[in-house]
Amino acid sequence: MSNESVETTNERSARRKRPVVVLGATGAVGQRFLQLLTDHPWFEVSALAASEQSAGRPFSEACRWGLPGEIPPGIADRVVRTLDPEDVRREIPGSCPIAFSALPAAVAREVESRFAQAGYAVVSNVSAYRYEPDVPLVIPEVNPEHLLLIDRERARRSWPGFIVTNPNCTTAGIALAVKPLDEAFTIERVFAATLQAVSGAGYPGVASLDALGNVVPYIDGEEEKIERETRLLLGRITDGARTEAELLVSAQAHRVPVIDGHTVSLSLQFERRPSPAEAIDVLSGFRGSETVRGLPSAPDPPIIVRHEADRPQPRLDRDAGGGMAISVGRVRTCPLLDLRMVVVSHNTVRGAAGASLLNAELLVAEGWIV
Amino acid sequence: MSNESVETTNERSARRKRPVVVLGATGAVGQRFLQLLTDHPWFEVSALAASEQSAGRPFSEACRWGLPGEIPPGIADRVVRTLDPEDVRREIPGSCPIAFSALPAAVAREVESRFAQAGYAVVSNVSAYRYEPDVPLVIPEVNPEHLLLIDRERARRSWPGFIVTNPNCTTAGIALAVKPLDEAFTIERVFAATLQAVSGAGYPGVASLDALGNVVPYIDGEEEKIERETRLLLGRITDGARTEAELLVSAQAHRVPVIDGHTVSLSLQFERRPSPAEAIDVLSGFRGSETVRGLPSAPDPPIIVRHEADRPQPRLDRDAGGGMAISVGRVRTCPLLDLRMVVVSHNTVRGAAGASLLNAELLVAEGWIV
Amino acid sequence: MSNESVETTNERSARRKRPVVVLGATGAVGQRFLQLLTDHPWFEVSALAASEQSAGRPFSEACRWGLPGEIPPGIADRVVRTLDPEDVRREIPGSCPIAFSALPAAVAREVESRFAQAGYAVVSNVSAYRYEPDVPLVIPEVNPEHLLLIDRERARRSWPGFIVTNPNCTTAGIALAVKPLDEAFTIERVFAATLQAVSGAGYPGVASLDALGNVVPYIDGEEEKIERETRLLLGRITDGARTEAELLVSAQAHRVPVIDGHTVSLSLQFERRPSPAEAIDVLSGFRGSETVRGLPSAPDPPIIVRHEADRPQPRLDRDAGGGMAISVGRVRTCPLLDLRMVVVSHNTVRGAAGASLLNAELLVAEGWIV
Amino acid sequence: MSNESVETTNERSARRKRPVVVLGATGAVGQRFLQLLTDHPWFEVSALAASEQSAGRPFSEACRWGLPGEIPPGIADRVVRTLDPEDVRREIPGSCPIAFSALPAAVAREVESRFAQAGYAVVSNVSAYRYEPDVPLVIPEVNPEHLLLIDRERARRSWPGFIVTNPNCTTAGIALAVKPLDEAFTIERVFAATLQAVSGAGYPGVASLDALGNVVPYIDGEEEKIERETRLLLGRITDGARTEAELLVSAQAHRVPVIDGHTVSLSLQFERRPSPAEAIDVLSGFRGSETVRGLPSAPDPPIIVRHEADRPQPRLDRDAGGGMAISVGRVRTCPLLDLRMVVVSHNTVRGAAGASLLNAELLVAEGWIV
Repeated sequence: MSNESVETTNERSARRKRPVVVLGATGAVGQRFLQLLTDHPWFEVSALAASEQSAGRPFSEACRWGLPGEIPPGIADRVVRTLDPEDVRREIPGSCPIAFSALPAAVAREVESRFAQAGYAVVSNVSAYRYEPDVPLVIPEVNPEHLLLIDRERARRSWPGFIVTNPNCTTAGIALAVKPLDEAFTIERVFAATLQAVSGAGYPGVASLDALGNVVPYIDGEEEKIERETRLLLGRITDGARTEAELLVSAQAHRVPVIDGHTVSLSLQFERRPSPAEAIDVLSGFRGSETVRGLPSAPDPPIIVRHEADRPQPRLDRDAGGGMAISVGRVRTCPLLDLRMVVVSHNTVRGAAGASLLNAELLVAEGWIV
Repeated sequence: MSNESVETTNERSARRKRPVVVLGATGAVGQRFLQLLTDHPWFEVSALAASEQSAGRPFSEACRWGLPGEIPPGIADRVVRTLDPEDVRREIPGSCPIAFSALPAAVAREVESRFAQAGYAVVSNVSAYRYEPDVPLVIPEVNPEHLLLIDRERARRSWPGFIVTNPNCTTAGIALAVKPLDEAFTIERVFAATLQAVSGAGYPGVASLDALGNVVPYIDGEEEKIERETRLLLGRITDGARTEAELLVSAQAHRVPVIDGHTVSLSLQFERRPSPAEAIDVLSGFRGSETVRGLPSAPDPPIIVRHEADRPQPRLDRDAGGGMAISVGRVRTCPLLDLRMVVVSHNTVRGAAGASLLNAELLVAEGWIV
Repeated sequence: MSNESVETTNERSARRKRPVVVLGATGAVGQRFLQLLTDHPWFEVSALAASEQSAGRPFSEACRWGLPGEIPPGIADRVVRTLDPEDVRREIPGSCPIAFSALPAAVAREVESRFAQAGYAVVSNVSAYRYEPDVPLVIPEVNPEHLLLIDRERARRSWPGFIVTNPNCTTAGIALAVKPLDEAFTIERVFAATLQAVSGAGYPGVASLDALGNVVPYIDGEEEKIERETRLLLGRITDGARTEAELLVSAQAHRVPVIDGHTVSLSLQFERRPSPAEAIDVLSGFRGSETVRGLPSAPDPPIIVRHEADRPQPRLDRDAGGGMAISVGRVRTCPLLDLRMVVVSHNTVRGAAGASLLNAELLVAEGWIV
Repeated sequence: MSNESVETTNERSARRKRPVVVLGATGAVGQRFLQLLTDHPWFEVSALAASEQSAGRPFSEACRWGLPGEIPPGIADRVVRTLDPEDVRREIPGSCPIAFSALPAAVAREVESRFAQAGYAVVSNVSAYRYEPDVPLVIPEVNPEHLLLIDRERARRSWPGFIVTNPNCTTAGIALAVKPLDEAFTIERVFAATLQAVSGAGYPGVASLDALGNVVPYIDGEEEKIERETRLLLGRITDGARTEAELLVSAQAHRVPVIDGHTVSLSLQFERRPSPAEAIDVLSGFRGSETVRGLPSAPDPPIIVRHEADRPQPRLDRDAGGGMAISVGRVRTCPLLDLRMVVVSHNTVRGAAGASLLNAELLVAEGWIV
């Protein structure tokens, strides 16, 4: 896609904002969606949907708002709809509307397919369809070409709409850090030890008795997700089908007493071993495709390399690029594999709602949503 | 040494307690020494020594006591001595007295040698002499035979006394967990990601602005210490000299907002790959030598295997065995190496003052201190 | 009661331990009961009872043990009983058995009366019966004579057993600190600002997103409890009936990111204004009655006065006297009322399970349990 | 001053930005000054000054930047000047330049007077001159008329420049909350229990061993500052002199494990007792003078009233109004005095650098700085 066409898309988008619905709007990630969508240049929250116990009530009553700052303007008094596309459609006219999904795991599979069947572009932060071979799992800077799977998805499932997913909160940072190095040196092995913030578990989520002054060296299903999703994200599309990358990933997940911001210590092995300086050059120079760079929520640069001895740190670096940039530091050799480094990313922005939002912007820019 | 002789030693020790001096008594580790030595069956604190600014004052005035509970009985009013063996000797009569060292790095090298030269058995928690080829670096359950280096140390340095060291706070837990597995399956590679408590940095140590709700992925010199000391502790004594173990160690150190208790995620590769069940059997069955098991501060067992999905955790497990046992859990296979597991140990007990104390008990039990 | 008779009671108690049941044994306070009852000289846990979903299963399966250290010996394999006195009675033979209650509020009222009706001495940490005019609310060092209400309770309710309660976790520290000052100078007004630990809310209790790096200036019902219970505890028994103390209490409750240990800043006004030195003398000299001093769980002294500028602190002082002593410091004048001071007490020991335990010991020592 | 003239002032200010120097630029408050001055419509950082050990080095080398985000543009490479007005003057031309002071207490008294003598308008966050009878202590919304003291200050000290101060971080929130209530109902007594964030102590400041999972019920000099400054801020100017307000204030200060945001629980007594609803009306309606409302850093409204049962909280409310608004909640009656309420304010914005900045804006708007 040429630079020109992107600008044209942007211009077109500016003319009218696309209506979107947030599914699971009252939860922790749902709230983050609403926050990030405030004053968005392309999208406008036109409907909120949530479970039966919230539906029918004004948002401000149905939701225990847990982010700093107030409920965004225009949201508090909006009545929450049920998770039924027909009910939502009353508030969202027009073709190919967008549904952001922050649904609880228990209902996501059924509800998301319902909306895809009703013609929605479902841009999901949930794991329900992440591992389906015909559903794209995408980070715009990493594997935008995986959107091609949508054709296969629609064909196979006979959906007028479709589902596109983003990775879990921790994988988001890992895959984005590894991608440029993989392009340059071909990644073979990844060790990842994670130190994860409590906001990743939602609300009420982690009990304070478990979190305060403590480490819990276990997060249910997390290690498997990281290992699998990293291979999927770095995989290739051939003849419209996706092949997993052939790399070994070992993840060790820990919960630490941090509100926001996941820290990951990586050790990496490549086909061609780079020096730390070469890796730093590649990371610093990474920009993603021209199309992606033009998206409203795309950070520039997506990867910030820190040169201080003790950075990145979640408190200082999670909000880089509005929470959409990841920070990489301590790039150094490893006695076992080739290189070690530390990655910090914002788990509920780049790792959740912001990831879906960027995916939606890419879908618009590439014409999947018209 | 037969079981009988240990008991005889114990009996002999019980008759009269050996006087000990704590060097650097007013600091964080010094205080832990005093706490652990309270009512010790073999040792009695007979002198306290610290820097010029503390010397000459009653301990309670010179020290900002920072442990829960009161200053142990008999200590508060004792006048702190200078770091001069002659000054200390006035309070400790008799031959081969014991000096526990919790000295600051800046002065440790000179002061410890001064005490060794004055005939003291210096049992040190400090790194000053840890890497000298003729100074034992010992964990009683791991490499008690390294005490044989004392002969070489004395001969080479012409000291009537000697220095014996224990590893840094994090290595203590790693080496103890790896030792029985090394014996059974021969360790080749170690990946260690650490989540370390702030008490390891002493007082005032880590600033609260760095610690609260944050991760600092860097501790000065820590990774090098872990990598080197693990190889030394698993090394062999041949012809009175020590050979480092030939294994690769990669350590990634992180400071987390925990008061006490280091968590380490390990991934291990062996010459003969064990199943998780085999590794658990070996870890659960490990007891250390008969001599060591008879020592007053030796935990029984030294390694506690946890079977819960989310254990060990510092809050729940750091005090196991009075802080001298380590807890190992989540023993499972690794996609890259052979096995993964999580270790929690108390960094200022098993990882510092308790480590020196156990070394001193071993020195007595084996007749190095008469 | 003479000193002699106490000793005789102690001796008698030592001959055989009394069987006790813990109601609500699987919860946070229930676990603390089990921990404090381990090796108790007078009591022995003979039965565990909990809700239907726990009953019938071994304790180790029914309970997510959340205290440092293991489940006490002999408890893990014991099958949990229902909250039915008949079911429990199968494991507890004999007359006037003791039931410690750590029941959830929703069921406490009904279950406790059921056990009292079945002849049990119900020693309760729950608020269900705390405000009944005929049910004693007791801290042994503060108002042991309130046990006389038991006669009225039994008569009025026709129960062969009875219920005795202790105050809520925060009031426990306040009332104990204020009592000796009230005796000496007659208290009139109390300002109490509390900084309360999260363990007071049980498990899972406070969400980590609310607790980490935050203050929540509200705890449901807490301020009212403190204000009311302080007046009750300092009240008098006349002709077998209790009169509330005539004093004004204003409490402001805050939740802070502390695991264990409540801090309370008090400002007090008296009929006769004492100097700080006079108040310190009274607090330091306080011992409680002879009977109470002889109880196995009674700390000696119950009030520890700290003289450092920055004490007491929960981290350093909560475990004083095994968690049963309170620490008072910063005794100084107040520009508005007479005196200010800071109190730290262990909220789940002195403030919960330990409070009930001490009440049960007093009931035995005074012959209410035979 | 009419609305028109303010706008005129704004327009004039917009034409050229006034050059300012930050004294003590490398410290925690100094950094916050630089952050708040980024893109300020009226002011431009033209010089940085700090102690001898920083002077002569580029800011990025002299300073350990501790705020989230990068060093503001144009600051990193600027060479730090000494605390000598002549040295600074080289970078700041023109008359009546502005010096923001974040100096350490030890040197503030001498250095600030040196700059006032050299003709600077010293707008200080430091306590050095706060209690001088001829130096204004000002919060623009509370007592803007106290700036009249400048005439007396200049006359008495023969300074071409002057010093204006703002209150300590905790008093800032208290005085702002109390002011409108004082105007409406005449305040007589104030009880204040504070729960203060660690950033108030600067860097390294509070040791993590003191802060983590703990409360320290003492902050050196804090209670006296709150008690005295509240009386000064609510005092009156008569015949060019300031009279302290006649009210009784009792403050109890606590440090809690929070990074930013002070929480204060107030209990207040008035000459005319308001109902909670009346107090809420007054607080909600408060706007400060027209002049103040027009200042670039003035929040609108300055006081946000929260109606949720558990608000305000530092995590959720400290950033209200860009950190310049305070949040008040839990307005309710008090059993001892008249009303209780909870105030949260950002201690390093409204309580420090932002307070000085707003004072400087007021000085410009009122023509004290020309």
